[in-house]
Amino acid sequence: MKNKFYTYIQNLQEQICKGLEDIDGGTKFREDIWKRPEGGGGRTRVIENGNVFEKGGVNISAVHGKLPDTMQKMFGVGEADFFACGLSLVIHPKNPMVPTVHANWRYFEMYDEKGNIINQWFGGGQDLTPYYLFEEDAKHFHQTCKTACDKHNPEFYPNYKKKCDEYFWNAHRFEARGIGGLFFDYLKATETMKMEDWYNFVTEVGNSFLQAYVPIVEKRKDLPYSDAQRTWQEIRRGRYVEFNLVHDKGTLFGLKTNGRIESILMSMPPHVQWIYDHKPEIGSEEEKLIKVLENPIEWV
Amino acid sequence: MKNKFYTYIQNLQEQICKGLEDIDGGTKFREDIWKRPEGGGGRTRVIENGNVFEKGGVNISAVHGKLPDTMQKMFGVGEADFFACGLSLVIHPKNPMVPTVHANWRYFEMYDEKGNIINQWFGGGQDLTPYYLFEEDAKHFHQTCKTACDKHNPEFYPNYKKKCDEYFWNAHRFEARGIGGLFFDYLKATETMKMEDWYNFVTEVGNSFLQAYVPIVEKRKDLPYSDAQRTWQEIRRGRYVEFNLVHDKGTLFGLKTNGRIESILMSMPPHVQWIYDHKPEIGSEEEKLIKVLENPIEWV
Repeated sequence: MKNKFYTYIQNLQEQICKGLEDIDGGTKFREDIWKRPEGGGGRTRVIENGNVFEKGGVNISAVHGKLPDTMQKMFGVGEADFFACGLSLVIHPKNPMVPTVHANWRYFEMYDEKGNIINQWFGGGQDLTPYYLFEEDAKHFHQTCKTACDKHNPEFYPNYKKKCDEYFWNAHRFEARGIGGLFFDYLKATETMKMEDWYNFVTEVGNSFLQAYVPIVEKRKDLPYSDAQRTWQEIRRGRYVEFNLVHDKGTLFGLKTNGRIESILMSMPPHVQWIYDHKPEIGSEEEKLIKVLENPIEWV
Repeated sequence: MKNKFYTYIQNLQEQICKGLEDIDGGTKFREDIWKRPEGGGGRTRVIENGNVFEKGGVNISAVHGKLPDTMQKMFGVGEADFFACGLSLVIHPKNPMVPTVHANWRYFEMYDEKGNIINQWFGGGQDLTPYYLFEEDAKHFHQTCKTACDKHNPEFYPNYKKKCDEYFWNAHRFEARGIGGLFFDYLKATETMKMEDWYNFVTEVGNSFLQAYVPIVEKRKDLPYSDAQRTWQEIRRGRYVEFNLVHDKGTLFGLKTNGRIESILMSMPPHVQWIYDHKPEIGSEEEKLIKVLENPIEWV
């Protein structure tokens, strides 16, 4: 399973980078190969200052070795060996009419002293963070998520949509980071879902990513925008930074366990602003977004 | 003591705001008075888009009530009443040749059921975060700190300078946030230092703030700078954000205990950038700064 899934995310990274480069038309991803001293490493791909994408990363990694102390505590286990691999992406477009997108698909294995697998699971999801709300875009993104889920179980979409709204809750701001999508974790073998079934589900979601995002980019990338709208985007990017650095478990985990900092923080937006006590005008498009973030709604 | 210190920080807020407005010459601080539902409140003063200061806050607060659960855990105590007051400031100048400065002076009391004080202490400090290193500025700032300390005890400066370097260590970046200054906490009554003596020490430091910072601003505020130097400043401000949101106990504590968000996050810089894997050129002024941040040195 680990080889199969790692091969899958290697190919998915290729496809996603190619798909995003095609729509950007201006620049290509650059690649950094890195090694983890304790075992494994990754292939980070970053795009900067494109026509469409101001900054973004599509990273894969596969790491293994002794389970670090912090992870032992997190999982409530003792010493063990582990393997983890995944693809993580965050794309920050330049035009404030185009939403930021994040996605992640990952697989984890733990072993006993003899090297037998004692635990294994998948996790991941994909979610959208618009700066201006186009309801048809939100519906398209969620519908694509739902279609992928429904092929496996009609309960997946409502469950994982809810988990996404809960996870990406920027608690200190009393608002969601974005308009959500899917979030799932600890997908372990059960009577009805073997690991192979979860593999099929997770890769179905992975395969839906470009369909979920690219049509939105196509539709919005050439819309005109004002300096004020760009400022609003930069302020909202500040909230993205706050979520990732204060609440996101993956980011904090990486920062506190000697992960590769530049690969972890590729999620940071390029240009960001903080203005004291900024509030959108009543009745404005900016306020319309905030209302939806404060009270996540059902899109499909 | 609490009334005496609160009166002191009220006056100090006036003095500092006045001193900074005088040197800015362009704009004034605006004021927000806020109440804490559980008891107490604060007076936040913010400056934005001045001639010299791009964004900054000089805030005071005095809060009281039942000790929140998080603070009970932090101090390893059970239920109790508390009082806390303090002044907190962060100033982000526009010109990258002028350093960012942070300072804080605070006083804490805890009570038993009858309202008797069972514990009380002072804390605080002041520290400098330059974007370009002028050694004479670093020396001036540290010398001013040392002079204030030496009037009370010759061990204070070396001790609190060290604690400052330790506290403002941006661990995931393997570098200090800035070039330090003073940091002290849990200054409690001892045989040689009564609370009155600590009051005299802490207010001595508070009174030294404008002397420590303003001459540096005067000297650097009109220096010319390039777009590339401004970009460097914005990248370094990103490190400031990272420290405050990932490591700073005060910020995290405020965010997780329903503090007044806008007063806490007034510390965020106005314009910030993240560029993937940015490294300064070898032998450049930017690299010179990094080397000092990686290995904090003795300035006086």
